[in-house]
Amino acid sequence: MPEPIDALFSTPEMAAAFSSTAHVQEMLTFEAALARSEARAGIIPAEAAATIASHCQVEAFDIETLYREAATAGTPAIPLMRMLTAQVTGEAQKYVHWGATSQDVIDTAMMLQMRHGLDLLERALLDICAACAHLVERYRHTVMVGRTLLQSALPVTFGLKAARWLDVVLRQLRSLRALRIEALAVQLGGAAGTLAALGEQGLQVVAFLAEELELPAPDLPWHTERDRVARIATTLGIIAGTMAKVAQDLMLLSQGEVGEVSEGRAAGKGGSSAMPQKHNPVDSIAALASARRAQGEVPVLLSAMAQEHERAAGGWQTEWTALPDIFRYTAGAVAHVGAALTGLQVDETRMQENIAATSGLIMAESLTMALAPHIGRPEAQRIVNATCERVVSSGISLRQAALAEPQIHTVLSADVIEQALDPAAYLGSTEALIDRSLNAYQEELQGPQ
Amino acid sequence: MPEPIDALFSTPEMAAAFSSTAHVQEMLTFEAALARSEARAGIIPAEAAATIASHCQVEAFDIETLYREAATAGTPAIPLMRMLTAQVTGEAQKYVHWGATSQDVIDTAMMLQMRHGLDLLERALLDICAACAHLVERYRHTVMVGRTLLQSALPVTFGLKAARWLDVVLRQLRSLRALRIEALAVQLGGAAGTLAALGEQGLQVVAFLAEELELPAPDLPWHTERDRVARIATTLGIIAGTMAKVAQDLMLLSQGEVGEVSEGRAAGKGGSSAMPQKHNPVDSIAALASARRAQGEVPVLLSAMAQEHERAAGGWQTEWTALPDIFRYTAGAVAHVGAALTGLQVDETRMQENIAATSGLIMAESLTMALAPHIGRPEAQRIVNATCERVVSSGISLRQAALAEPQIHTVLSADVIEQALDPAAYLGSTEALIDRSLNAYQEELQGPQ
Amino acid sequence: MPEPIDALFSTPEMAAAFSSTAHVQEMLTFEAALARSEARAGIIPAEAAATIASHCQVEAFDIETLYREAATAGTPAIPLMRMLTAQVTGEAQKYVHWGATSQDVIDTAMMLQMRHGLDLLERALLDICAACAHLVERYRHTVMVGRTLLQSALPVTFGLKAARWLDVVLRQLRSLRALRIEALAVQLGGAAGTLAALGEQGLQVVAFLAEELELPAPDLPWHTERDRVARIATTLGIIAGTMAKVAQDLMLLSQGEVGEVSEGRAAGKGGSSAMPQKHNPVDSIAALASARRAQGEVPVLLSAMAQEHERAAGGWQTEWTALPDIFRYTAGAVAHVGAALTGLQVDETRMQENIAATSGLIMAESLTMALAPHIGRPEAQRIVNATCERVVSSGISLRQAALAEPQIHTVLSADVIEQALDPAAYLGSTEALIDRSLNAYQEELQGPQ
Amino acid sequence: MPEPIDALFSTPEMAAAFSSTAHVQEMLTFEAALARSEARAGIIPAEAAATIASHCQVEAFDIETLYREAATAGTPAIPLMRMLTAQVTGEAQKYVHWGATSQDVIDTAMMLQMRHGLDLLERALLDICAACAHLVERYRHTVMVGRTLLQSALPVTFGLKAARWLDVVLRQLRSLRALRIEALAVQLGGAAGTLAALGEQGLQVVAFLAEELELPAPDLPWHTERDRVARIATTLGIIAGTMAKVAQDLMLLSQGEVGEVSEGRAAGKGGSSAMPQKHNPVDSIAALASARRAQGEVPVLLSAMAQEHERAAGGWQTEWTALPDIFRYTAGAVAHVGAALTGLQVDETRMQENIAATSGLIMAESLTMALAPHIGRPEAQRIVNATCERVVSSGISLRQAALAEPQIHTVLSADVIEQALDPAAYLGSTEALIDRSLNAYQEELQGPQ
Repeated sequence: MPEPIDALFSTPEMAAAFSSTAHVQEMLTFEAALARSEARAGIIPAEAAATIASHCQVEAFDIETLYREAATAGTPAIPLMRMLTAQVTGEAQKYVHWGATSQDVIDTAMMLQMRHGLDLLERALLDICAACAHLVERYRHTVMVGRTLLQSALPVTFGLKAARWLDVVLRQLRSLRALRIEALAVQLGGAAGTLAALGEQGLQVVAFLAEELELPAPDLPWHTERDRVARIATTLGIIAGTMAKVAQDLMLLSQGEVGEVSEGRAAGKGGSSAMPQKHNPVDSIAALASARRAQGEVPVLLSAMAQEHERAAGGWQTEWTALPDIFRYTAGAVAHVGAALTGLQVDETRMQENIAATSGLIMAESLTMALAPHIGRPEAQRIVNATCERVVSSGISLRQAALAEPQIHTVLSADVIEQALDPAAYLGSTEALIDRSLNAYQEELQGPQ
Repeated sequence: MPEPIDALFSTPEMAAAFSSTAHVQEMLTFEAALARSEARAGIIPAEAAATIASHCQVEAFDIETLYREAATAGTPAIPLMRMLTAQVTGEAQKYVHWGATSQDVIDTAMMLQMRHGLDLLERALLDICAACAHLVERYRHTVMVGRTLLQSALPVTFGLKAARWLDVVLRQLRSLRALRIEALAVQLGGAAGTLAALGEQGLQVVAFLAEELELPAPDLPWHTERDRVARIATTLGIIAGTMAKVAQDLMLLSQGEVGEVSEGRAAGKGGSSAMPQKHNPVDSIAALASARRAQGEVPVLLSAMAQEHERAAGGWQTEWTALPDIFRYTAGAVAHVGAALTGLQVDETRMQENIAATSGLIMAESLTMALAPHIGRPEAQRIVNATCERVVSSGISLRQAALAEPQIHTVLSADVIEQALDPAAYLGSTEALIDRSLNAYQEELQGPQ
Repeated sequence: MPEPIDALFSTPEMAAAFSSTAHVQEMLTFEAALARSEARAGIIPAEAAATIASHCQVEAFDIETLYREAATAGTPAIPLMRMLTAQVTGEAQKYVHWGATSQDVIDTAMMLQMRHGLDLLERALLDICAACAHLVERYRHTVMVGRTLLQSALPVTFGLKAARWLDVVLRQLRSLRALRIEALAVQLGGAAGTLAALGEQGLQVVAFLAEELELPAPDLPWHTERDRVARIATTLGIIAGTMAKVAQDLMLLSQGEVGEVSEGRAAGKGGSSAMPQKHNPVDSIAALASARRAQGEVPVLLSAMAQEHERAAGGWQTEWTALPDIFRYTAGAVAHVGAALTGLQVDETRMQENIAATSGLIMAESLTMALAPHIGRPEAQRIVNATCERVVSSGISLRQAALAEPQIHTVLSADVIEQALDPAAYLGSTEALIDRSLNAYQEELQGPQ
Repeated sequence: MPEPIDALFSTPEMAAAFSSTAHVQEMLTFEAALARSEARAGIIPAEAAATIASHCQVEAFDIETLYREAATAGTPAIPLMRMLTAQVTGEAQKYVHWGATSQDVIDTAMMLQMRHGLDLLERALLDICAACAHLVERYRHTVMVGRTLLQSALPVTFGLKAARWLDVVLRQLRSLRALRIEALAVQLGGAAGTLAALGEQGLQVVAFLAEELELPAPDLPWHTERDRVARIATTLGIIAGTMAKVAQDLMLLSQGEVGEVSEGRAAGKGGSSAMPQKHNPVDSIAALASARRAQGEVPVLLSAMAQEHERAAGGWQTEWTALPDIFRYTAGAVAHVGAALTGLQVDETRMQENIAATSGLIMAESLTMALAPHIGRPEAQRIVNATCERVVSSGISLRQAALAEPQIHTVLSADVIEQALDPAAYLGSTEALIDRSLNAYQEELQGPQ
């Protein structure tokens, strides 16, 4: 984990997955696998490969010295190769890093780290799905104010709100999984992408290497074609955006004047240094801040795509810190949304009260649609509009106003009017939509992962 | 097309697809299809649907007035509904826009426009693929300097360079096609996403509507879950980045001191107002500028994902102009790269001269790898390093220096040294990589589109 | 104005200032002033200058043809020079565009347009200041809930809220004005920035040109040093951010559950196509969308700063559309905030009710500070904390809970407790802060503009 | 310094200035100064202030525990206040953090860190200016190819190129200095910005606090008006962009085919793991990567400006990590450009050769301007254009072509033609421009800092 403050916006696991130590370990993993692959292809002796692999443990390397030299070399790969070569004595020394270039090591190491990062994100998104599914089931019938453009609009249920969160998070899970096949890839091209130093056997070595590391083998080296990296980055950016949507909803619902949800309480959580009564939605806030930082890496990585010729000068080096950051911050956003949803306290009474406080105005469309078959939608809308104005200006309820309005009560009976003004009766396809999202979740759980 | 200047960074076809007129037409297309779908579901009379549909032609609407009212209403949907309702007289008037909300109309219209935009981009990417494939075949064996970190590195062929462009562009084509199923979707949720105004038949109407418009039907309404939109935007951002990579390569190769390619000449193209000798790579430049603008929309659209509750206040409205822009500018980037590649003039002589000008230093790795099996890679690298220093300091060629170096000529025969210094003999898997990219292209052409 | 939809997020005046027509006019203004300056310097005949200047009227040029050729040439300057040269017959024709390069024309034209844009923005910001000052004065004593992290916190006044808006907008006005001297500049460097074609008199011509156009003369040409442009762009980005802050406050205060302000009503404004009762904060929403788009241009323009050598290939061309966009969208954000503030309806009763609804909890810090001098802040905070918990759990008011709490009423008298719980009595420096902001505004009005 | 890899893109000094430890120390500096200020205002006892101040040393705090609690609390201020209060025993304990809120501590601490960061950046920019001034003087008369749109254009001198770098960097220095007065500010507003807990004396305490910390006192608290922060961020973003411009120029000049400059050599610097002959421009590359990351924080911080009500939920928290990052990465960009310029090796011979390689075509404008007074610029341009075409097609020099062209040699004598084709004679105002930049630098050095 970078600086202590960053821990507020990430998770320890993701920080570890993208530490410089992890990066060095994965570079060593690449070197070991490369040696084994070249031995399998008959390019280097099997004993040399075994010896090289036996030295590929990060514990044996002085990370601090390595990065001090890296600052001069402009890359950590060169000092690492120097150190590894120094450690591997005897005949095997000749074969260290055979036929590869710095970028092969670094890119593949980053891919291995990202595969780990995707694992962590998948698990965290599944936790969110579970939390959402729980909320969907528990509050399936809990009617609340639906809000559009931040104004009270129509009744919805809290279950439906959670179902929509579930639906969009499930889609992110699928996007994430698709990356394993479509975006992860081993990198091995040699200095200029021709695999020249491996003679005729370059592609064979690439294939073995991909097997060894359980990463897809790309058709061609991709030293300066960074669409895979950009695809991963943008997918994470969209996940971060999804988290921001949920976190913002929670924060808006937690407002003093709304009060429909609050984050679970814990010792030392959400207090204020000045105001003893405060209970701040700290997870939602941290999720929003994390998401912003994660999304901020996306344009950096996109603009870094214009990489020069066979290997780039600037754009590629940008990825070295931007990719770790986008994984760290996305993990922070996902973890905080997970925490907020898991401990969420839902105030059903307050939801009822907030409906009541609208004086029935959220049933205006319902009343319009009840009138419409009789007099057409435009005329119905005109009448209900005028009735709503009366509600606003005189402080009576829409029920009172509707029953008093001749243009309404001559068309609809009192019973029908009452029915049209019942929030629980104007939920349309809510049930079916909820079922769809729960079914999709069940399929995801049972499906092949 | 927005302002005349924008034409330099887009295409007339894409500009037309995202004009406000096109948007209004697609809103009307939605209204017609909605009416037909509701008639099929038995919600409104078939005659009403037919009457409504007959009025859904943009030519009958005064766009200027519409948008003047839109500026006050905060949305073009409301004045359009007012205008459409006014045009549809008689019984059918009652059923205009039945059960839908403004966002249903606007989102679906934008999806229809984006589908058209994807068509245009696909065709333009295919043109680029064809141009690349032509270059691959024609210059398959044209050896040139491979450059890493903008320094001469190893030999490659121009065919391989083009093959890598082809490979990455093919991948973009596939990403683009995946959007049709994974990101396009009809929108119909009604005011708060419950389809309340359609009673029991909401989902039936959604299904019919999707059929009518040939757009996928989403599981749930997605008024504030904008991952689909973000997915489209980021895919275009990655395409723009891919174009920037190719354009930058072309621009660097076109430099006076490199001179290996130049954009095709045409009357009035690439001149200078002050310098009569100039031949500027105007398509590459315009592609780079277009790509930057396209990518600039990505963070805007990602940050707009945090949309409030059931329908958003600000984030959604941002999409109205940002989505057209990202399509327009991506089209510009793609078109200009296409134009640059199609007319590209390749100077094979200059490529030869540039290899010669490196004094053989680009063969240093080759020489190292020739020595390595005998004395190990580290020792070989040390010796070749020193030999290269001598080349740089004394102005002789690597050939001369190598033949004069005892540590080399005692290990390798003169013939082997000559062979190790032949650029055309140190191309590794170049042929195989080229074949892979051409095969992938052939498959794409033959495959189901 | 680009496309009709863009009118929702800009103003007609700013759209006109950055139309392609305006750009061509300002390019012609440059050519006229250049000719006059060169005549003053004795480089070209005075009659030639007069003749050239007489042709520098945009009406005489076919903009459509010009931009069609521009798309091929890669710049509008070359076809414009061709057209202008064709129009200027006789001796004067020899001297058209003498010694200048395309970028001189385009950059200076853009500077002239931006100067106009700054005028428009200044006026619009002054309108906002006036609207804020009005709100400050009118609601100086209107106590309302202060909110932190979207939770009820302490009492503030609506006057103070408006005073803070006023304060930050005044600061933007000053930043904007500073740009006239620190960022605007004439451009004249000739093809490579040496003014070579003007012989010894280059700097004299630059000085005359600056005089003619009333733009600052830069020390050196700035063809590829774009800090001035970036400075203007970032200043606008900060203005847009300021507008977003105000607009978001307004939108949050307009929420159904808060209801403390609402945007002025007008025919056709803020309605919904489905819900007759809705009154959407359309100006705030449009301001937020405009601000997002404006800010989105900032990274585009910053990343465009890495301009190559003497004149750039890509970065500079990016500015041609990005600068107009940032001015247009910033104007939209400012105009919509201005409209929202000018017509703002403030519900003082609702503000009172919202205070009441907190059960006095927003006075917790006040009570703490009343206790603190007696028992220390930590102990006071502990006691008030516990008392607040009781308020939350039992539904009584803080007044009731405090009077019933021995640890409080043994230290403070009932009168002192009452006083400590009076929102209007716990406003600290509110009055003084309000005075400061009004004074700063008065100074701004009277000061030299 | 975050992770070891980040050291490649920053400096140890800047990393230290923005470490979490430095942040905690500055929070404690705030608390000490607050206590002293309140003692001066007579609000708390002087002994209490002295006792509190004596505990405000970061060494006495367990940073790890602090940040573990911070992750739960959502802010480091709350656990720090708890820890500080625990350390300060006796009477003084009552007065810890009196009247302040978490954001007051954090914002002021960040301002103190940023002041330190500005010091470091100023010094580093001054180093760059010195390096540039040295290059200007040494290469004042070294003629080289000026390049526009990456094509050979006109002669310039390397001194002029460096003078333009100097000019733009000087401007950044001035922007940076302006921030001290215009953007730095103490923060003290109390929980809702009214300074309520300080009764009548709030503004007095703010004034004292500003004195104690030597930071400007703002007119009003600025908890949610983040223009100051944005101003600092954008200024750094522009500095980063300036560094990118210089670094890119260096990288382009270092290309194998151009070879006019190279970065100073040092052991372990700029090598390749595969190619022994490589000398990579590692400082320029690291500068470009650092600049990209620095600029990437700008939109993050701009979009964070929309902060809610009296104190924000998300936007503010984003600053906690984004501000340190922008300072760190800007420092990296500046340091690497400084290192590249300081050790820069300039190859004047290569510059001459590159001029020669243009066959005189870079003198085309010069020849045009020599002809123009006789036959007008349009006609001259036409003739020179045709002559240049002949140069390109037949491989002769412009000198040969011009002497052979009747339309030229009938107008100009051979001597005049020779003169018109001498690069050193067509430098226009180069000398004067160089003098201007050196003078500005001298003024800066002598002026008040």
